[in-house]
Amino acid sequence: MMPKFRLFLLLYTLITAPAWADDGYRLWLKFDLIEDAALRQKYLSQVPTIASTSTHPTVQIAVEELRQGLGTLLGKPVAVKPALGANEKGISFKLNPTESGISEEGFKLQTVGGTLQLIAQTERGLLYAAYELLRRVQTGTSLEKLSVTSSPRIQLRLLNHWDNHVGTIERGYAGMSLWKWYELPERLDPRYTEYARANAAIGINGTVVNNVNASARFLTDEYLQKVKALADVFRPYGIKVYLSVNFASPRILGKLKTADPLDPDVRAWWKQKAADVYTLIPDFGGFLVKANSEGEPGPMDYGRTHVDGANVLAEAVKPHGGIIMWRSFVYEPDPKGDRFKAAYDEFKPLDGKFHDNVIIQVKNGPIDFMPREPFSPLFGAMTQTPVSMEFQLTQEYLGWATHWVYQAPLFEEVLSADTHAKGPGSTVAKVLDGSVYKYPITSMVGVANTGSDRNWTGHPMAQANWYALGRMAWEPTLASEQIADEWVKMSLTRKPQAVATIKNIMLKSREIYVDYTSPLGLHHLMGEGHHFGPEPWLNKARRPDWTAVYYHRADSLGLGFDRTARGSNALSQYAPPVQQQFENPATCPLPYLLWFHHVPWTQKLSTGRTLWNELVHRFYSGAEQVKWMQNEWNKVKKDVDSEIFANVAGRLLTQEKEALWWRDACVLYFQEYARQPLPAPYQKPNRTLEEVKNLVDIYHLR
Amino acid sequence: MMPKFRLFLLLYTLITAPAWADDGYRLWLKFDLIEDAALRQKYLSQVPTIASTSTHPTVQIAVEELRQGLGTLLGKPVAVKPALGANEKGISFKLNPTESGISEEGFKLQTVGGTLQLIAQTERGLLYAAYELLRRVQTGTSLEKLSVTSSPRIQLRLLNHWDNHVGTIERGYAGMSLWKWYELPERLDPRYTEYARANAAIGINGTVVNNVNASARFLTDEYLQKVKALADVFRPYGIKVYLSVNFASPRILGKLKTADPLDPDVRAWWKQKAADVYTLIPDFGGFLVKANSEGEPGPMDYGRTHVDGANVLAEAVKPHGGIIMWRSFVYEPDPKGDRFKAAYDEFKPLDGKFHDNVIIQVKNGPIDFMPREPFSPLFGAMTQTPVSMEFQLTQEYLGWATHWVYQAPLFEEVLSADTHAKGPGSTVAKVLDGSVYKYPITSMVGVANTGSDRNWTGHPMAQANWYALGRMAWEPTLASEQIADEWVKMSLTRKPQAVATIKNIMLKSREIYVDYTSPLGLHHLMGEGHHFGPEPWLNKARRPDWTAVYYHRADSLGLGFDRTARGSNALSQYAPPVQQQFENPATCPLPYLLWFHHVPWTQKLSTGRTLWNELVHRFYSGAEQVKWMQNEWNKVKKDVDSEIFANVAGRLLTQEKEALWWRDACVLYFQEYARQPLPAPYQKPNRTLEEVKNLVDIYHLR
Repeated sequence: MMPKFRLFLLLYTLITAPAWADDGYRLWLKFDLIEDAALRQKYLSQVPTIASTSTHPTVQIAVEELRQGLGTLLGKPVAVKPALGANEKGISFKLNPTESGISEEGFKLQTVGGTLQLIAQTERGLLYAAYELLRRVQTGTSLEKLSVTSSPRIQLRLLNHWDNHVGTIERGYAGMSLWKWYELPERLDPRYTEYARANAAIGINGTVVNNVNASARFLTDEYLQKVKALADVFRPYGIKVYLSVNFASPRILGKLKTADPLDPDVRAWWKQKAADVYTLIPDFGGFLVKANSEGEPGPMDYGRTHVDGANVLAEAVKPHGGIIMWRSFVYEPDPKGDRFKAAYDEFKPLDGKFHDNVIIQVKNGPIDFMPREPFSPLFGAMTQTPVSMEFQLTQEYLGWATHWVYQAPLFEEVLSADTHAKGPGSTVAKVLDGSVYKYPITSMVGVANTGSDRNWTGHPMAQANWYALGRMAWEPTLASEQIADEWVKMSLTRKPQAVATIKNIMLKSREIYVDYTSPLGLHHLMGEGHHFGPEPWLNKARRPDWTAVYYHRADSLGLGFDRTARGSNALSQYAPPVQQQFENPATCPLPYLLWFHHVPWTQKLSTGRTLWNELVHRFYSGAEQVKWMQNEWNKVKKDVDSEIFANVAGRLLTQEKEALWWRDACVLYFQEYARQPLPAPYQKPNRTLEEVKNLVDIYHLR
Repeated sequence: MMPKFRLFLLLYTLITAPAWADDGYRLWLKFDLIEDAALRQKYLSQVPTIASTSTHPTVQIAVEELRQGLGTLLGKPVAVKPALGANEKGISFKLNPTESGISEEGFKLQTVGGTLQLIAQTERGLLYAAYELLRRVQTGTSLEKLSVTSSPRIQLRLLNHWDNHVGTIERGYAGMSLWKWYELPERLDPRYTEYARANAAIGINGTVVNNVNASARFLTDEYLQKVKALADVFRPYGIKVYLSVNFASPRILGKLKTADPLDPDVRAWWKQKAADVYTLIPDFGGFLVKANSEGEPGPMDYGRTHVDGANVLAEAVKPHGGIIMWRSFVYEPDPKGDRFKAAYDEFKPLDGKFHDNVIIQVKNGPIDFMPREPFSPLFGAMTQTPVSMEFQLTQEYLGWATHWVYQAPLFEEVLSADTHAKGPGSTVAKVLDGSVYKYPITSMVGVANTGSDRNWTGHPMAQANWYALGRMAWEPTLASEQIADEWVKMSLTRKPQAVATIKNIMLKSREIYVDYTSPLGLHHLMGEGHHFGPEPWLNKARRPDWTAVYYHRADSLGLGFDRTARGSNALSQYAPPVQQQFENPATCPLPYLLWFHHVPWTQKLSTGRTLWNELVHRFYSGAEQVKWMQNEWNKVKKDVDSEIFANVAGRLLTQEKEALWWRDACVLYFQEYARQPLPAPYQKPNRTLEEVKNLVDIYHLR
């Protein structure tokens, strides 16, 4: 079709279509015209031109992003030319490998004369600078006399995709995998590039493309060609590819009799395989391993240790500059034990025994991405072996794709928690960035919430969690409020009142979710297997530590898991000041109370209510707050795109329905132990526990 | 955002974006401006205005489709007003319940004076007329002195979705299910409406939304609310909702001790369940059942028959006007038997014993959607019980989403096959439309190839198969060439040379696929379980009739399944003239040869080549033809959208790679039996059979 016809068509679409719907595909790279004409003029006067002669693909991307982004933001084409004239306003790039005050990926944004200079040691740094500049314009921030210096505090800022080779995503709620394995390497979905753009714009520099429950097929020549095709797309965006590997690969693929890490043939197999990988993908990142966990193979199948397992892989990738990310998520099905303690018990004794290109990847809490967990005791405990943070963006335990939960407050809570590992101020963030123990590798990963849904994340608001992970991996002390502010302005609206309203919902959303699903430190009450909806009554499962009763321990006296010295003594895994904070039920912060204490139903809490009354209050007020979210959301109707508005409004209705399931399930179930009426003003649910159980059971039907 | 800003933005997008990419989302409802100005003017002079005052939602949709569609096709707004003036040109609607010469869903398109009249007995008929009119404008057909009369030859024109409750699609290759069960009924994805539009435009009037391997959960109140929400969206488009049901539902949901169809409690349960369904969805279509097949529950679990099973359901829906679609796809794992005969053996004796609201749903061939099958002997055999046609749009055995196979020639081949049931001319089409046996219900269904992929079908060209199913269900004698012509012009390009080139590829594509995967009547050679790629060597599986050797019967003497009287005698299930056509290997048409005969390797065929040489020739020339497809496709580069061009070009590369797998796997494997060299000019594959096996085995790795 010729351009003039396109124009014609577009005008007609514009005239005839009832609304200009936004399907959320553009994420935070939404460069719609700035409505404030004065502001536009101001920016135009500052950055009317871009100067670059670079032929480096990464710099060319930076130039093109600025040209297109500023062009539509400011409503006027931004010219690209080789150089700015004397005193000519515009944007220029300065690549200086020895630039001081920044790290390899860092950048400066500086006003020098009339020029806005983007300065970095590497091309990646320049690309990050370009996205920072665009963010400033998108959010309406002044470009006056800029003197910005920014470097990432964490080296490896990764997404982990739990994407299976068949295209499904384990714990994914936004469609199929982005990776079309059956089309690769011949066909490159244009979305691969969009994915790279979105990540680069928030500083993410690596991606593990396959599930930790890993198929061995990814290490075959056939599949490595497919992975290479992705790596080639991502490379100019500064993003490295990593793979999850199946520890039994030498047996499965190499036809060896064993995968024993101390077997010489196994070692040789891994070395050769690593060499093959790096021949195809010279900047390959490394391997992620889930070993001897939930049925996956590992070194313990052969009487070896995690050290043996990790080190044989580390040796194999070392000559090529690769790393091994070894997950600490291991636990044994001991009905008398405490799963809380498993990772620490397993890995603390191994501290210092891993090769220097191994990093232990630790989930934020000791159990498994519950709506709230205390920080894992491994943070601060590993003095010689680096640990990385694994957050979960996909909302396995946070209401899937129908509950609006902004996770940055959860991240912030964990990152700012004080491990006291080397005295006060030894926050988890400082452990991670290596400032507590000088780790040779630092890393933060998010288990991706992306999928093939048009808007990437299913719930439109879940885009903010992906955004937040990138921003916090770059700077772990960023406040969740600031991140929300940026994201709303970049993705939804710049109208001040609407921005304030949406931010307010976001910042409260996680606490609301906690209140109606697991207040006061309750955890692991969700449906068996699928982890959907409430199932506090679950007392039988394939493993004891997959039930709910294992965790909440309700009885006629009270509720909660005693992890003090009188109980499992999991608290002893923390530094003494942390232990002290948690060990006295009278002073233990309420959000963590039932994580550490079995508390009598009649115990008066700091709120003035008894445990039972406080529980009921939380479940009820939490569910009521969803209505508040709905009301607040309705206020921004005129200020956000109509399709996004309707999308979120619909999901909030489902959230309300399911919040009531949670409330009724938990209150009615725990009431059988507490044997007390509901405190005023709360009315008994208008259904029986049996009815709620029947409802939830539907979701277990084949 | 205000309209003027939108305009601004759009203009900028237009100016700055390198190409106006078409992602295929609009399917055949693509109303881009007609480039031929004279033709546009001609149409504009004929249909400048639409007259309607209807408040019926279906007519309003018809008006709106015409207004928007013609508006952008013709590049000028088309006004809608209550009535046309005397001699005023335009479109008018005439609803006349007693209009002669058409059926309830039929329509007339007539020029009356200056007016183009859309005439129908029902609002649905008017909607179909509107889409017909748009199709004529999209394809550049004259509107001069129109006198069109059209009625569907088949009553039920359905899609069957094999969509699971978890969102996956059994044998789906285009993403996740369109139905977001966890968001329904509160949130309605805008795509539900787009789905309804696309179907209505091709005459599809019903949809079975869930997999025939059915979860009982769809019959719970919880899920029926979700189904109702879909039905409410589809209703104005003339589309009814149907459900696949799990035959054990009375036990699973009703907590009865049995699902025995003759048990009074079971009968009562189904009656009540049907009443509940119809209370929510008064125009609910009915139930589809896969019973006692591949592990699904059914009446035989209780010593009952398919008649018992179908009739108890038929009784339940009868008072509400519902129907039961009972699948004939049943077969027992007998290594000495012939799966070919199973459906006929099971159902022929039951002819006439089903209630009059039961229809037996029969796959086109006796096995299972092979690239080519002879028509099922059940077509023509059932004189008193109606049978419907089940085609498979999703390409389970046709190369998934990376092989370009236009299926209309397959449909046409089957529909035009002569069953000789009541003498010559008793084509399958005439059996289906009730003109052979006066069936009270007529039906044709396609197992959907739709999914959440942006372009709906994964392979852009697979959209044509969905389109063809709708068109052929309306008129089973439509030629695949005409359908291709329409579809290309509506979906891809109107440039005559490009239309011709693309149509040519389409019309040859299925035969090419047959040649490189299963020439001369070979069948069921595909990979175990996943059905991906070749596996002719498969000799062990969970059932004998899931292997390849069960079907091809290669030995040192020859190849093929003897289904004559000397063999399984499956041929006896056909009418004598059909038997005669197939029973002599010397006269049996080559495409069916190995379906019915075990032929010596050295046997000379009608082509002048021996069986072995002809086989090799087909596998090699088939694979070579993929290169021809690539070359032809390259010729239309400038005439189709760039994104679609690249998408198809990429998939053709994968198709070529996989065609070579098939060729090498089959030629090398069968050569071990034929013990002959490859005939000139063909060169031995440059890999061993072992190497091909290793490659294919990768796709079996967990």
